[in-house]
Amino acid sequence: MASSTLFQSSPFSLNTNTKPYSLPISTKPIHFTVKSQSQSQPQPLTQNNTPTPSPSPSSKLRRPADENIRDEARRKNVSQHLFSAKYVPFNADPSSTESYSLDEIVYRSQSGDLLDVQHDLTALKKFDGAYWRNLFDSRVGKTTWPYGSGVWSKKEWVLPEIDDDDIVSAFEGNSNLFWAERFGKQFLGMNELWVKHCGISHTGSFKDLGMTVLVSQVNRLRKMNRPVVGVGCASTGDTSAALSAYCASAGIPSIVFLPANRISIAQLVQPIANGAFVLSIDTDFDGCMQLIREVTAELPIYLANSLNSLRLEGQKTAAIEILQQFDWQVPDWVIVPGGNLGNIYAFYKGFQMCKELGLVDRIPRLVCAQAANANPLYLYFKSGWKEFKPVRAQTTFASAIQIGDPVSIDRAVHALRSCNGIVEEATEEELMDAMAQADSTGMFTCPHTGVALTALFKLRNSGVIKPTDRTVVVSTAHGLKFTQSKIEYHSKGIKDLACQFANPPMQVKADFGSVMDVLSKYLQSKAPRYH
Amino acid sequence: MASSTLFQSSPFSLNTNTKPYSLPISTKPIHFTVKSQSQSQPQPLTQNNTPTPSPSPSSKLRRPADENIRDEARRKNVSQHLFSAKYVPFNADPSSTESYSLDEIVYRSQSGDLLDVQHDLTALKKFDGAYWRNLFDSRVGKTTWPYGSGVWSKKEWVLPEIDDDDIVSAFEGNSNLFWAERFGKQFLGMNELWVKHCGISHTGSFKDLGMTVLVSQVNRLRKMNRPVVGVGCASTGDTSAALSAYCASAGIPSIVFLPANRISIAQLVQPIANGAFVLSIDTDFDGCMQLIREVTAELPIYLANSLNSLRLEGQKTAAIEILQQFDWQVPDWVIVPGGNLGNIYAFYKGFQMCKELGLVDRIPRLVCAQAANANPLYLYFKSGWKEFKPVRAQTTFASAIQIGDPVSIDRAVHALRSCNGIVEEATEEELMDAMAQADSTGMFTCPHTGVALTALFKLRNSGVIKPTDRTVVVSTAHGLKFTQSKIEYHSKGIKDLACQFANPPMQVKADFGSVMDVLSKYLQSKAPRYH
Repeated sequence: MASSTLFQSSPFSLNTNTKPYSLPISTKPIHFTVKSQSQSQPQPLTQNNTPTPSPSPSSKLRRPADENIRDEARRKNVSQHLFSAKYVPFNADPSSTESYSLDEIVYRSQSGDLLDVQHDLTALKKFDGAYWRNLFDSRVGKTTWPYGSGVWSKKEWVLPEIDDDDIVSAFEGNSNLFWAERFGKQFLGMNELWVKHCGISHTGSFKDLGMTVLVSQVNRLRKMNRPVVGVGCASTGDTSAALSAYCASAGIPSIVFLPANRISIAQLVQPIANGAFVLSIDTDFDGCMQLIREVTAELPIYLANSLNSLRLEGQKTAAIEILQQFDWQVPDWVIVPGGNLGNIYAFYKGFQMCKELGLVDRIPRLVCAQAANANPLYLYFKSGWKEFKPVRAQTTFASAIQIGDPVSIDRAVHALRSCNGIVEEATEEELMDAMAQADSTGMFTCPHTGVALTALFKLRNSGVIKPTDRTVVVSTAHGLKFTQSKIEYHSKGIKDLACQFANPPMQVKADFGSVMDVLSKYLQSKAPRYH
Repeated sequence: MASSTLFQSSPFSLNTNTKPYSLPISTKPIHFTVKSQSQSQPQPLTQNNTPTPSPSPSSKLRRPADENIRDEARRKNVSQHLFSAKYVPFNADPSSTESYSLDEIVYRSQSGDLLDVQHDLTALKKFDGAYWRNLFDSRVGKTTWPYGSGVWSKKEWVLPEIDDDDIVSAFEGNSNLFWAERFGKQFLGMNELWVKHCGISHTGSFKDLGMTVLVSQVNRLRKMNRPVVGVGCASTGDTSAALSAYCASAGIPSIVFLPANRISIAQLVQPIANGAFVLSIDTDFDGCMQLIREVTAELPIYLANSLNSLRLEGQKTAAIEILQQFDWQVPDWVIVPGGNLGNIYAFYKGFQMCKELGLVDRIPRLVCAQAANANPLYLYFKSGWKEFKPVRAQTTFASAIQIGDPVSIDRAVHALRSCNGIVEEATEEELMDAMAQADSTGMFTCPHTGVALTALFKLRNSGVIKPTDRTVVVSTAHGLKFTQSKIEYHSKGIKDLACQFANPPMQVKADFGSVMDVLSKYLQSKAPRYH
């Protein structure tokens, strides 16, 4: 392996030549000479461009004791940026020239529309797909700042112009792409069912992926002396948790508005523990949202709500990561739970960039899965995309997608229409049963994953998804955030639900005979040949 | 990248030559020719040993639709095992010849001592350190069965003789090695403080690492028609969760004994959701343990308790993974919370194997951190290893290490004496404060991590650990499992604790003026130059 002094933390730190194929420098210590037919592999080059030998472990130079990984990145970074990105109105007319620097604080276009982060694809295309695949692969699993993160290992596609030094990262991403072998076989007759466990993460949900990008950009703005004294959000759950954690990590004040008496301990505890300034306000969620909009118009607080387009740049890396984990083979279907609908667009954008930049030759079909209690996109899809009507969202166990008037509706429709996508819905009984079924095969899923799994059940039953289709279900949060609803389910304590897969504990007296009786019966039922 | 037909899922599937340096075959598609001075790099070889070209994405052969990753591994696996392992009495006299096949069901030696899984180091040493480093590195971040797992990517060192097909894996391991930048700088003046987040995992604790090994071996035994109708444990928490999840994944009955009315919802919900047969028994934890010992002596239930030496083989991979994530540089200190004391030995064993097999040239000093309420190892250490006395463990927030008479005491003492290790302790106030301090810098830690962080505070204060020492704190569970104790802390609701880092929410009326007042004051305190 290379010593730390021999490899470069920035792929563009030594060579200023921008011609394609000439300058890639690996972040990973690879000590092979490069085959001529494989020009676009990242090449390990020393200052004089000769391949480096592999030092023996004892001769390895360790990073100096007073230098941390951020210092190391700083020392090596020449801060030369070949790539750039800017805000543009989402799906703007080609003739539109409206755009904003990412260093501006702007949430919506002049006409009030959503913004999109637009990358300079011409610059990115100077490198071919194999180059990007190998660059991204070379960064997996190390602690090199900031590429140990699954998000920042795709930095050139996320925030290409930010200094490594400004990045606020918890080494997020690189989440488990889990082969749901037993669930697929037992319940769906499928060989190739996978669950992308985005919730097995630092704060327990996929929101980390977007928040590292937003808070990093805020950190940069603050260093540029822009008037940002803190970051605020109104959220009952995962967003406030992720915001608080990343702000805490950077020492940036975070402000969270929560409706008093309407949220659970589990929803409250993360922002509190992460040192956020938590205002418990005597109103409902919409009231909190209204107040934070008014307040951020008066005070220099950056608003981290769900229309923010920076967050989607981080979230899209989960799609790239799925392709990478499949060794750049493309799955047939990806199913994403949808509420405010930013994430389904983020997945589309990640896949689409991989296709456009030659990493893969097609993209998967996307399925957006909604709770029937909050299904405006589903109704819109069923109408043949004729007329969109917000709905009044009813209570759902899938609380993070309980949204009747989704901010990112236009983004979602664009994504789904572009990939021949589908929208499905799940009733409360369906989603809780699907969650319990998944858990019974060794997962520990959240209700949103139950929504996505229900969509899969329906599309398998209707034959749209075939037994051999390689399918990825996106799990958005860790089941540990939903222990209360699981307990209610398994104690059959939910009104109007049969809870048919409940598995309550059995009460037994503390004596050997009683325990043996109960166990023998159970084991007989499991292994009839025994006895 | 290689097509799936070009690379081998087993490093030993083609070449039967056992000479060192001659047969390494990569699992990862690398398309470089190998430099002559780097003989021990894994080489990508086709059937006729010529380097493979890099196919364009469109020409990549995808695994056939009816073949899953397990089928693929089966097709490619010639099942030739160069390595082996067996049970031997722990720290046996060199003259002892007592040993057992791993396919026997045996928990203790003839004399009632602990067992240890002993690997054939002579066979492993036929390959040099660089070979192993590169082999392990080549397996990171892919879904190739079973190497996508952080445990099974080290299969040759774990259970070398198990068929890939028998393995029960959730792609565990590969957990986040988090740079605790702000915590290290703010509270300890340290540049190089890292937290190995073993709890950001499938079941939310490090127990996954060991349980994948135990359940895989049980799966193998059942396929060999050994009389194992299920796996049982008596555990109040993480062990039963991990056991249930892995058994569910394999369709093996799991049986969990829990003391009725003494455990929390969060502790109960995982085995229930994962389909375990949960007996809620009207006794305490010791009573459950006694009963399951009696029952498993009568019924063919494999006992998954903490003296099981198979589990340590999985847990030791976390140590190897730390070295790997540091690019095979060795940290100075690794701090591990200790209760039953298997894990501290597992870390030692992982590090020691890496040294013995030439992957690194030294091992870190280990610190075992105990709760003061359950500190028998600490007292033993303080006595100069003179006399070990079990203690009666008092209640501690660090519930998983509330153990007064640790099963693995001999293993721990051997580990600590061999690496010049240290034992520290943490009071309830210290551990809860340390947890809150860590959380305030963006983590979301468990009380056990609080114990380890307290040990670090003390060793920094005494100057034993220096500001520039590279130090890893092992976090054993996800904070989401401990939301209740965090809420109690932040609401200052814990008797005899000052809860000095509590951050309770602020109640505010739902009107613009009230919110502005509160926020302006807060922001002024945070950014005095504003206004």
